[in-house]
Amino acid sequence: MSDGNGEQGTWNRGPGDGWVAGARPSTATSGVVDNPFFEYLLRLADDRLVLGHRLSEWCGHGPILEEDIALANIALDLVGQASMLLKLAGEVEGKGRTDDALAYFRDAVEFRNVQLVELPNGDFAATIVRQFLFDAWDVLALEQLLGATNEALAGIAAKAVKEAKYHLRHSAEWVRMLGDGTAESHQRAQRALDELWPYAGELFLMDDTDRAAVAADNGVDVEVLRPRWREVVDRVLTEATLTIPKGAFAPRGGRTGRHTEHLGRMLADMQSLARAHPGATW
Amino acid sequence: MSDGNGEQGTWNRGPGDGWVAGARPSTATSGVVDNPFFEYLLRLADDRLVLGHRLSEWCGHGPILEEDIALANIALDLVGQASMLLKLAGEVEGKGRTDDALAYFRDAVEFRNVQLVELPNGDFAATIVRQFLFDAWDVLALEQLLGATNEALAGIAAKAVKEAKYHLRHSAEWVRMLGDGTAESHQRAQRALDELWPYAGELFLMDDTDRAAVAADNGVDVEVLRPRWREVVDRVLTEATLTIPKGAFAPRGGRTGRHTEHLGRMLADMQSLARAHPGATW
Repeated sequence: MSDGNGEQGTWNRGPGDGWVAGARPSTATSGVVDNPFFEYLLRLADDRLVLGHRLSEWCGHGPILEEDIALANIALDLVGQASMLLKLAGEVEGKGRTDDALAYFRDAVEFRNVQLVELPNGDFAATIVRQFLFDAWDVLALEQLLGATNEALAGIAAKAVKEAKYHLRHSAEWVRMLGDGTAESHQRAQRALDELWPYAGELFLMDDTDRAAVAADNGVDVEVLRPRWREVVDRVLTEATLTIPKGAFAPRGGRTGRHTEHLGRMLADMQSLARAHPGATW
Repeated sequence: MSDGNGEQGTWNRGPGDGWVAGARPSTATSGVVDNPFFEYLLRLADDRLVLGHRLSEWCGHGPILEEDIALANIALDLVGQASMLLKLAGEVEGKGRTDDALAYFRDAVEFRNVQLVELPNGDFAATIVRQFLFDAWDVLALEQLLGATNEALAGIAAKAVKEAKYHLRHSAEWVRMLGDGTAESHQRAQRALDELWPYAGELFLMDDTDRAAVAADNGVDVEVLRPRWREVVDRVLTEATLTIPKGAFAPRGGRTGRHTEHLGRMLADMQSLARAHPGATW
């Protein structure tokens, strides 16, 4: 198996590299946001929208029909969750923006996903390792949201957590198969882990927006979640005979709109049709 | 809304145009096939594989998040059905070919789908009209297959017919909305119907392969099906204020491997990764 969809190259960059050129400062980067719950819902939604879109790029291009279908199903789940979260975000914002408006008419600097999910698919091993690191986080995060005081959010979490558990089973099984497979598959999985691991750290950062959501019982306390995530990840990676790379978690900034150049390219592709026909009603 | 995925231009061609350049004669074009049931299963499978892949090209490119998800779901259903049918075909053939081998390692001349499903997506109206013409046929065809003497085939039909009924509800509803919508949507839907209608005829052709399958109670008698299909189609198109174009059904040949040039391009895209890594087991 080889690269999925054209975009190539290493994802490791020095600090400061790889952000969107000319990113204009958003209200969020100052650490003060008008509507923290709206902002928080965007973070939840955008992780899913962006990762779902990335996975959908495999659609019809996988080397195995069954895996093609499985990845497409996971993509659909994630985009479906994003759609629900964006609808709720639009209601919370109260300015009449629909899920479509939020998906198709925000620029990269307005996206709130972690950088991990916007990275190009790379080869199948990279897609799977990225998915596994996210899924292990996602199941635990959604379990916390089951008790959200906002009933709509709790309802979305209840539906999503079932899907996420399936996603995690699937990605963890593949990580084991690739890591503990052939020499080639092991080497590819290890390389993917080396490249992606630094990006996982952003899932565990908290700022005032997160803390406000947690204080209102509508958010995920990722600091509590972190050791449990590490436990799951350690267990699977050990079974997969893969080694966690040394070095600190590095990239950050996605939650406040600082993204790699890859997100801009992905959005150009994802948003082009909707933007060419704004408000199309024919 | 505009063209979905790059490929443009009219689909209407004079007789003899648009076939795969250099198509080599297959055993099937002579009207005699070694294993008619294998051949018949390929016809059922390839309609779904090709149409499912076409629909998946909309993945993440639609102008409405909800419709994007709906089309992707329909694509997944169709590719899932194709996968089951290709597995069965491989068993019936008895040469050890898997569903993946049949999906990724046959050339265009070995595909047995009707030309209708291989046409480029065109705009959203064309995608929907093509889907409707196929879905209306598909529900009736699968209902006949519920009584197949081959139990595996009957089982696939039982699962697929539920999906097909949902597909038909969805596409029929869109045909009504587009046809009986704005001036622009009506005009686009009518143009799509004018272009696609001639291709629907191929769904109702029968040759020795079909007749052998029907005789063994493992096939669809499309001549019986035709008036019922026409009834469904007439009703929906009337509600949609659309007019069936005059002129006979024209293109044919897909069932014996004569395809438009569009299929070759689509397969190049769909098969490239699997062919670059035959038997990849890393």
